[in-house]
This record gives sequence, structure tokens and C-alpha cells, in this order.
Amino acid sequence: MASGDMRWWGWGDPDRAPSLSGAALELLGEEVGLAAGPRAPVELAAVRIAAPALRPAAARVLAAAAGPEGIVGDHPARVLHAGGKGYPDLVRMRAGTPEGAPDAVVLAQSDEQVGAVLSACARAGVAVVPFGGGTSVVGGVAPVRGRHHAVIALDLRGLHGVRAVDRESLTVRVGAGTRGPALEAELAAHGLTLGHFPQSFEYVTVGGCAATRSAGQASTGYGRMDELVRGLRLRAPAGELAVAALPASAAGPSLRELVVGSEGILGVITELALRVRPRPEATHYEGMFFEGFEQGAQGLRLVAQERRAPDIARLSDEEETRLSLALAGEGGIKGLAGRGYIRARGYGGGCLAILGWEGEVEDVGRRRTDSLTLLRRAGGLPLGGGPGSAWAAGRFAAPYLRDELLGHGVMVETLETAAQWSDLHRLRAAVTEALRASLIERGTPPLVLCHVSHLYETGASLYFTFLARQEEGSEIDQWRAAKTAAGEAIMANAGTITHHHAVGRDHAPWLAQEIGVLGVDLLAAVKHRLDPTGIMNPGKLL
Amino acid sequence: MASGDMRWWGWGDPDRAPSLSGAALELLGEEVGLAAGPRAPVELAAVRIAAPALRPAAARVLAAAAGPEGIVGDHPARVLHAGGKGYPDLVRMRAGTPEGAPDAVVLAQSDEQVGAVLSACARAGVAVVPFGGGTSVVGGVAPVRGRHHAVIALDLRGLHGVRAVDRESLTVRVGAGTRGPALEAELAAHGLTLGHFPQSFEYVTVGGCAATRSAGQASTGYGRMDELVRGLRLRAPAGELAVAALPASAAGPSLRELVVGSEGILGVITELALRVRPRPEATHYEGMFFEGFEQGAQGLRLVAQERRAPDIARLSDEEETRLSLALAGEGGIKGLAGRGYIRARGYGGGCLAILGWEGEVEDVGRRRTDSLTLLRRAGGLPLGGGPGSAWAAGRFAAPYLRDELLGHGVMVETLETAAQWSDLHRLRAAVTEALRASLIERGTPPLVLCHVSHLYETGASLYFTFLARQEEGSEIDQWRAAKTAAGEAIMANAGTITHHHAVGRDHAPWLAQEIGVLGVDLLAAVKHRLDPTGIMNPGKLL
Repeated sequence: MASGDMRWWGWGDPDRAPSLSGAALELLGEEVGLAAGPRAPVELAAVRIAAPALRPAAARVLAAAAGPEGIVGDHPARVLHAGGKGYPDLVRMRAGTPEGAPDAVVLAQSDEQVGAVLSACARAGVAVVPFGGGTSVVGGVAPVRGRHHAVIALDLRGLHGVRAVDRESLTVRVGAGTRGPALEAELAAHGLTLGHFPQSFEYVTVGGCAATRSAGQASTGYGRMDELVRGLRLRAPAGELAVAALPASAAGPSLRELVVGSEGILGVITELALRVRPRPEATHYEGMFFEGFEQGAQGLRLVAQERRAPDIARLSDEEETRLSLALAGEGGIKGLAGRGYIRARGYGGGCLAILGWEGEVEDVGRRRTDSLTLLRRAGGLPLGGGPGSAWAAGRFAAPYLRDELLGHGVMVETLETAAQWSDLHRLRAAVTEALRASLIERGTPPLVLCHVSHLYETGASLYFTFLARQEEGSEIDQWRAAKTAAGEAIMANAGTITHHHAVGRDHAPWLAQEIGVLGVDLLAAVKHRLDPTGIMNPGKLL
Repeated sequence: MASGDMRWWGWGDPDRAPSLSGAALELLGEEVGLAAGPRAPVELAAVRIAAPALRPAAARVLAAAAGPEGIVGDHPARVLHAGGKGYPDLVRMRAGTPEGAPDAVVLAQSDEQVGAVLSACARAGVAVVPFGGGTSVVGGVAPVRGRHHAVIALDLRGLHGVRAVDRESLTVRVGAGTRGPALEAELAAHGLTLGHFPQSFEYVTVGGCAATRSAGQASTGYGRMDELVRGLRLRAPAGELAVAALPASAAGPSLRELVVGSEGILGVITELALRVRPRPEATHYEGMFFEGFEQGAQGLRLVAQERRAPDIARLSDEEETRLSLALAGEGGIKGLAGRGYIRARGYGGGCLAILGWEGEVEDVGRRRTDSLTLLRRAGGLPLGGGPGSAWAAGRFAAPYLRDELLGHGVMVETLETAAQWSDLHRLRAAVTEALRASLIERGTPPLVLCHVSHLYETGASLYFTFLARQEEGSEIDQWRAAKTAAGEAIMANAGTITHHHAVGRDHAPWLAQEIGVLGVDLLAAVKHRLDPTGIMNPGKLL
């Protein structure tokens, strides 16, 4: 396996040690129940995938396009590209029974080579799954063949690095296969940052972020990926589309916004022009407590609508707050004098918010004062930097915890949505209730946690985490029941089926409900023009 | 003619008195030359348009869809809908020789009626020009039949009014035919504003603004129309597309951004969900002087990139500044102690900027200080409120002046573009030189004026005004020579062919150069799905 590859059966660095304490496990045992003993993944060699189906003629044209070194067909590489990192992916992979695997992994080394590979696949009738970081949690990189005889994973990590820096315009051109940390390291040398930090930051590629309209933890401040992308290049079977990096234009509908979010079904994004900002001199993260979720959301709405929002604003609901505080142990969350401090001020159950500002020292100070003045007026109780540091230290850790919990027989899944402020509370209540009811019905009462993760003037996003004891042997059915209930509740309550995880395969059943049959038809018409034989990422989005 | 109709031969209120002083005319006579005597428009009755071509069968299905009152075929109505308000429109109309006229004007009274009219037109083979405010300056409402036997103007002013106000989410649902002032009046009753003030504000409809990706004078602060539109409804011959008002979504490519900017070629926007803001308590506009355009642009870049930009920021180049000051008379621009004040501080030729802030009183004060601190550091010399008030008083007046100048034999035309900061200066120089050279070659040396009109973190827009003595009898050829030279210069220097005037017919020759042949094909594929028989606004955009 190449360096930087993730655990084939889970998330991230294969050498990372477990971190859940005995007390935490005991608590989770009480709350949702654990398996009787540890449930380890099978050995890599025991993972069952079919023999490669690539026909010899197809293999020859592919080899001509990608070069002899560019095609990898060994078991580990195929397993590693057999799916993303969603809950069902992990369940199947740990059991050694992925739904399928690519018939070959093709390693693209240049934009031109991507074009050549797509042409070869179109000629040879081979489906192509563009593979960036491989972090999709919605089945976006599932190796689906569609009506083709074989499918390849087109690994794009060879298209890496910053290609040009325009310091005056604060834009950079970047290879789409550049991973988050590598990009930030290169930008740091120029005193710049993209400011895009999804939870998957450590493994994600910028092309993947653009293809999925990703949002990062600081997107309230830096903007979502769709705002950061100013220009791009897309290689499609039918040719290349180049969208120039312009600050704004009225030259017809936005092709940029047609490619951003296209999830690989139109072609492969090979290059991005991205808006960057000066690297922050200072970062300041802190906690705040609210009496309840509605009070906290009201405060966040005020700062967003007054345009005094922190760059990071995250408000946990009562249940997520309760669990965070409990898991942090008897002493309360780090740096906080314990629940007594909060209770003494009349904040009982309450909700924890994490707020963050980044920028020049003076600017962070001023903007923090601006935000806090409004939030205090809305009832917020400042908790100081402790909870902020604790959040920052663990900001990319949740996927590791998921692996540990799966090892103890606990299902952990997340889903997210967004809505206008006036719809937010009924949406949260409906999704929470749908998840609870669906899992109670299956005899596995869940914990359902929720937080606001991104603020806009007109609304906010909601991020749900749910945990339940796994139904051994029916893990996927159990998951699907909960996911379906949540999707229906989102659609019935003015939410979007996804705020930043994208559609992939898991959300596709709701797309027509969200954008209409005619809307789906429009996307299909665009796809048909760019990908007439339908080789690009079959089964996703549409 | 209906109340609120504009002069059929020019801009705005038919009763408005001329405002150019004798001194101003004398100056313009020296600078570019005037016609020997006034050149008045012909009488309305003398305007030559062909007899209506609508076949009886088509008239019957249209009458069934629009009702007997809904179809108007008289001479004044047809002339009034015979074009927009671009320079060639006005030249032709004043001469009584428009290129064509709609065969009928249909007045839609409801969204459903729009749908019925489109179905009728698709059946009867009649082209449809969606007609909002009729203010296009790029031929966007030219009554082009395409391959159809007749063309109607579908007047949308019947779809007027605010349909719902969501105070909590700060969004409103509005009929697409609502004009600027009526919308602001309705919003004012709720303490709200859209904050969208293009120069055409007094006549424009919100649907037209969305269809053309319009920008207003305060869009640096409030955002462009494409940002203000959160949701919309489009009636197309093939059906209705509804895009829900969401703060953000990752559910595939943005259909909102596919309809915004579609200029009537996909269908008719009937309703918009718009982001609004609290109506400002205070507005403050003032002037600032810079030694030169590069210094001023540098200052504006800084405030934009530090996110301390004024809501209105407009920087005239040396030539525009010189002419503004000269036209303001010997005493200097209003409220300013005259050129002596500026010269005494070492600012010779120099450039005038207009800066504006809107919002809560305290907020305006703080944000103004923030902007001015940076702009002063960049070399800006504050001129106080006088120039700001003068700008505000005349902010919607330029189209009236154009009518007056046409009456004196002076061509006045504007065009606009945008580019990244690092391309801005060569783009301005190239377009200025292209306009100058093309008109000198025709023996009519022009004045070419330019200002920055909108700021972004990565770049800015440039707005050009050019004036020259009209070539009597060859006005259109003269105009086309200049417009073509400018378009080529924009394309060769990393600009967009239009920042906020849209493509219409005048910019269509450059669209393929800007978005590529494949990009144009994608839009054509979308159009074909929504408008299979090609009745929607033929000859525009593509």
C-alpha cells in the first residue's frame, strides 16, 4: 500500500492507538449497550472480492493511456478502493464482504493522462470512479459498473501540488488531487491558507471537496468550498471544460456551479482555482453555555444576521451536550470548573457552543468582542478557552472513535441537513424523533445528538450523530431503517437532503424529491452531453 | 400606454425636464463635438413597424391562455415592447426604425397564466420574449422570431408584489414582475430592504435582475442578485422547476445558478425567494481622492481583502474624474472646496472615489472608520460628504443624460467587465485603448471614462463609459466598431465579457470564447430539455 493510505477497514492512520477510556465505554454500555466481546475486522487477505473483470482489450487501451506503472490490480489496492468511509462501507469491509471492488486501480499522473484514461474507458466500455481521498460517507466512490463490463477507480492523488500563486488576487491554482494537509503546508510557505477544514481534512483532496460541495469546520468564516472555488478544469469523456477564475460574471448561467457538486458523474475535476486568505496570526476557540437549544440558536441567528458571526460556530443540543460532558469525565470538560459552575448560574441541562475566530491578532480580538456581546445578550454564558482547546485538539478525531465503537458493537452514523431559521426547530425535532422511533422499533434505542455546524444569514445547518447497539447480522438493514426515516423527515420538514456530505448513492433516492423530476432531467441532459456512454461514476447522484 | 411606462424613445419618466447646463454642453462640444442642431425623436405614430404576423389560430390559443384582456396589439404597446434601452435601441427608435416589434404584447396576470401562455406558444409556434422592466442594454428583449412565424412580448408586470415575508429567516417571496421601487416600498413596511439598486432601479423587475445576474450600486455590501436569490420558480414550456429557498445545500450541482443568468432562454422566472436585510437606520456616502487609479485600486483591494470594504465603492479613473469635476462647474463638485484643496495637498490629476456605508447608526460609524483607516493608509484624501451627496442625488440619472446627449448628436454607451486584481490594470488599459483607437479611426475621437464599481476579495469590476460625436447615418456601424474592439480587448486580457449587463444579443459573439464551445453546448442541452421547440427568447445568450 502507498504511504498515506488509510486503514482499509476504517479511518486514518493504521498506527493510531485506541483512545476510549474504560469509563467512557462503561457509560456507552449503559446508554446503548456494547457487544459481549470485541468485534475485530477480518484479515486483509480474507476480504472477498471477485476476480478482475477487465477484458484484455480494455486492459491494453488502459495501459496505453496510463502507462504500465499506472495500472494496479493487486488485492490490497483493489480492497483499498472498494468503497468510501460511510458506516455501511465499514460494516461490510470489517466483515470482509465489500459489495464489490474496482477491476483495476489507475493512478493518474497528469491532467492529460486523465483525459487519455477517460477516452480509453469510453472506447472500451469501462466505468470510471474518480477517487480522491476516498472519504465519502454517502457511497460516492462505490465501485459500481452500471451497464459496463468493468469499473476502474481512477486515483487522482498524482495530480498534486500548488501550480500557481497569485498573491495580489489571493487565488491559487491547485492540482485536484492535492490533500488537505499538503495544500495547507504549501500555502503556509506563502503565508496563505484555504481555511477549509472538514472533519476528513487529513485525507480529503481538494477536487473531492469541490465535487461534493464540502463545508469545513470554519466555513462560516472562510466560506464553503463552492465559494472558495473560483475557477476549475473538468476532463470529461466528451472534452475539456475550463471555467476561468473570475471574481464575478453575468455571462449566462454559472458553469462553475454546475461542475461543483457534480460528484464525478460529469467528468474528473483536474485543477481548481481557489480563493485563499492570509494565514491567520491568531486563532481563538472558546466555549459558551446556553439554557437550551432554542436560546443558543437564537443567539447564533443574531450574530449571523448582524454579520458578526464567529468563523467557527457550533451549538450542541441538550443531548449532545449531556453526552459530551459525561464522556469528558467527572471533572467536567477540560478547562472548565465542572458542571457546578454552570448549574450555579442557573443553566441546568443546557447546551454547549464552541466558537472560534481566526485572523490578525487585533482583528480576532475585535471580532470576538462583537460576537460575544450579541451572544451574551442572547443569554450565553462564556466558559473560557478550555472547551475551545478541547474541541480543537479533537477536531479530526471522531472518525477514529467510530472505528473503536464499531469494534465494540456500536453503530455510529452521522447525517446532516440545512434549513431556513424559521424551519430549523421543527426540522431538528422531526429528524431526532424519526431516528429515535425507527431504532426503538428495531429494539435498539439510540442516542441521537445534534449540533448546528454552519451559520448563514437565512438559516443554518444541522449535524446529527446517532449511536445504537448494532443488530448483529442485520447491521445494514438497521442502518437503512434509520437513514430512511431521517431522510423522509428531512424532506417533510423543509430541509435539504444534504448540506455538505453530498448525494452519492445513499441520498440519491431523495434527490428527485428535492429538485424535482425536471431538475434531475436537466442534470441528466448535461451528463449525456459530457459523458454520452455513461461511464462516469455510475449509480451516484442521479 | 400604461402608467409607469417609460418614454418609448428613451429612458424613464416622459415628463422629466432636461438637466444639462449650457456650460456642460459647451464643454462637451469642445471635448467631442455636438450636432449642429438638436436631433429630436420622430413622432410615435411615425415609427415604422410591420403589421402583426400572428396567425389567427395562434391568436385564438393565445387568447384562450391569456384571456381577451391579456393580449394587446396596438401600435404604442408594440413600439414600447420593440426593444430594450441600449444605445442601438435608442438610435433606431428615435429614428422611427426599430428592427422589429412583437406581433402582440401579452400581459400575464399569474404564474399559472405564464405557464398556459408558454404552452399555447409552444403549440402555435410563437416565440416568446419575457419582458420585465424592458431595461436591457444588451439586446436582451429584442423581438426576435427565430424560426417561428411570430413573436410575442410576455409582459410580466402583472406578477407583482411581496407574497410572503419570513422575518426570522430574513427571506421574502416575491412575484418576479415586481419593480424595484414597489418592492422597496413593500419591504419598508416590514422594516426590510433588498439592497439591490442598479442604475435602472426605478424600472427594473426583480425577475429581470435574476435572469441577468444583475449587480446594484451597493452590491459590494448587500451582495449581487445571484447571491440575493435563495430560491425561485421557473415556468418553462416543458414544465415547472422549483428551487427551494435553502441557505446552502450539497445536493448536486446548483439549479439555482443554472436559472439565474438564463436570460429568458430556458423559461420565465415567475417567483423569487430573496434574502433581505433590516432597512438601514443610517446611510453615509462620501468622497475620497487618490493620486492615481493604481493607488486607489490598491486601497480598494486592501479593504476588500481585509473584509472592511464599504457597501458602495466606486473609483473613477483620471479621465472620468477630470470630466466629473469639469462638468460640476468652476466651483468644483458640490460640498468640496474646489480643485485648489486637492491640488494643495499634492493630488494633481488624481482619481475620485465614492464610498458608502449603510446600516445601524453605530455600525455605519465603526465600519466607516475601519474602511477609512485602511484607505487613508493607502494614500486616500478624505473629501467629506459633499461628493457623496452629489453622487446619491444623481445615482439613477445617467440614462436621462444619455437621452439628452443623443439629442445633441453625441453617442454615449457603457460596457462593463470584471477581472482578478492582478489583471485589472492591463484590462483597463487595453479596453480604454481599444475604444479610443477604434473611434479615432472613424474620425470621432472619444472620451473614454472608467470606474471600479464592485469589489470582491479576488478582483473587481470595471465600468466604462464612452462618448463621441455620432456619425450621422452610420451610428450603428460606429457603435459596433467600438463595441467589437472593446469585446476583443476584454477577451484578450482575462476579463469577463459582462459583469452585470448580461449577454443578451450584443455579447453573444463572445460567449463561446469565454465559456468554451463545450460550455455553450451544455447550456444548449439544458435549453433543449426545457424548451424543446426553441420558442424562448430566440437569439439571446447562446
